[in-house]
Parts: sequence; structure tokens; C-alpha cells
Amino acid sequence: MLHDDGFHALDRQECLRLLAKVPVGRVVYTRQALPAVLPINFSLDTDAAVVLRTSPASDLVRAIDGVVVAFEADEFDATTRSGWSVVITGRATVVTDPAEHERLSKVGPDSWMPQRKAVFVRIESKMVTGRELGAGLRAH
Amino acid sequence: MLHDDGFHALDRQECLRLLAKVPVGRVVYTRQALPAVLPINFSLDTDAAVVLRTSPASDLVRAIDGVVVAFEADEFDATTRSGWSVVITGRATVVTDPAEHERLSKVGPDSWMPQRKAVFVRIESKMVTGRELGAGLRAH
Repeated sequence: MLHDDGFHALDRQECLRLLAKVPVGRVVYTRQALPAVLPINFSLDTDAAVVLRTSPASDLVRAIDGVVVAFEADEFDATTRSGWSVVITGRATVVTDPAEHERLSKVGPDSWMPQRKAVFVRIESKMVTGRELGAGLRAH
Repeated sequence: MLHDDGFHALDRQECLRLLAKVPVGRVVYTRQALPAVLPINFSLDTDAAVVLRTSPASDLVRAIDGVVVAFEADEFDATTRSGWSVVITGRATVVTDPAEHERLSKVGPDSWMPQRKAVFVRIESKMVTGRELGAGLRAH
């Protein structure tokens, strides 16, 4: 579907395929009543939930546990003015089940930062939307 | 300043210098009571406001005019696990003054999409925060 604004809408499968290509996305949430955004590396779980790994003391964990957040990833090429973006919107939940924590320690994302203790956060892929401008990056 | 989470905080000048390097950032706002995020190309005005160019009919204009939003840009390198991110938080305002519109038509950002009529939105750089992981990308 080509919108008036020149973007093609992407279907859920295409969105998840693109999301799996990039290492870093951005958690979008509210902090002290203001819009907040934090880039973080992630992985996709088998049920298409976004999995983040952070530290128990992080502000992020306190701000998003149990809350509906957005998670965005994109790739753009300024030369060809093409690219895509995908947004997942869903509830974020800190993983408290020990077996689930153990599983994600093996298959979940590594942290890019030194961490003594890891906390995993899952964001349900309840709503998945994506759009594409041009076609330059989609096939890569 | 090195935080426990391994990031260096960046000062305002450094944030604005990095922001000027990249063509695309992300507007973070609220749409129908849900967190929303939209990648868009931008430029920095002389007073360090972020300038966006969009169409009068866009959902974005309706959602953010007069509202405090966040605007984020970043660069990360997955190989070296380094990068930076900058977030500007401030009020977004549609430019209605004809002289200001004319000025931004010359010095503001181009649109990446075909547009019959342009609307400019300025986001005041009231709060500017940034952080850096590693030092791999900062000097580039």
C-alpha cells in the first residue's frame, strides 16, 4: 500500500524479518510525565516478543515494568533517501520466573555494558507496524 | 562522567555537534494515549532547535503541535559495541509566521517524500542529554 506520504506499509512478517536484521532499537516510554527514549540492543524471542537485557538497578526497569511501551528500529540511507522503520507496541514485563531467566540467559541478547547481574525485560509484540520509503534497503 | 552502566554523559555542545552529523532522528510523542515514535529527517536551526518538514495533513502535526516531545538520534556500531545517543526534549510548534516559513524553506531540511505543501515544525532544545558507549564513533 502506497500512502500519500510516499511510504509503503509493511505486514507483520516483513516487520519481524527486518527487526531481526538490526542489533539496536529504541524503547519509547514515559519518565516523570515526559516522553523518553533509550537505545538498547535486543533480540527477538520465539513468540516475536522483544527481549532486552539490562541491570536490576536501571531506571528503565522501574519505568517500564508492567507498562505499555513502544520499541522502534529502523535503517535509513541518506544518499538514496530510502529505508524502513518498524514499531512494536506492547506491555513490557520484567522476567521473574527463574526457568525463563535461565532460558533467556542462553538465547537472549548479550549486554553491551559490563553488568554484574542481568535482568531481562520482554515487550509483547501486540501491535506491529512498519513502513518503507523507497526499496533500497529492504532486500539487503 | 562514567556511570555505573558504562556510559559517558555528553555535554550540550558535544550533543549538538553529534546531532548535526546525522540526517535522521526520531520524534517521540503520545498518540491516542500510547507511546509513539516516528523517524524523520531534520536539521538544526541556529538556536539549536530541531526543525522538521512534513505535510499539513500529517498525523504528526496534529499530535505534536504545542506539546512537549522528545527527539532522539544515535549512531551505534555493533562490531565495536560503541556509539552515542542524544535526546532533545522540548515543546514542538508548527511554524505559522510567513517570514519564518520562508526562511526555513531556504535553510530548513528537505523532505524525503513528495510534498505539495510543506509545514515546518520546530522542537525547542530545552533539555539536551546525551551519552556515549566506548569512543569508537565519537571522533568520526
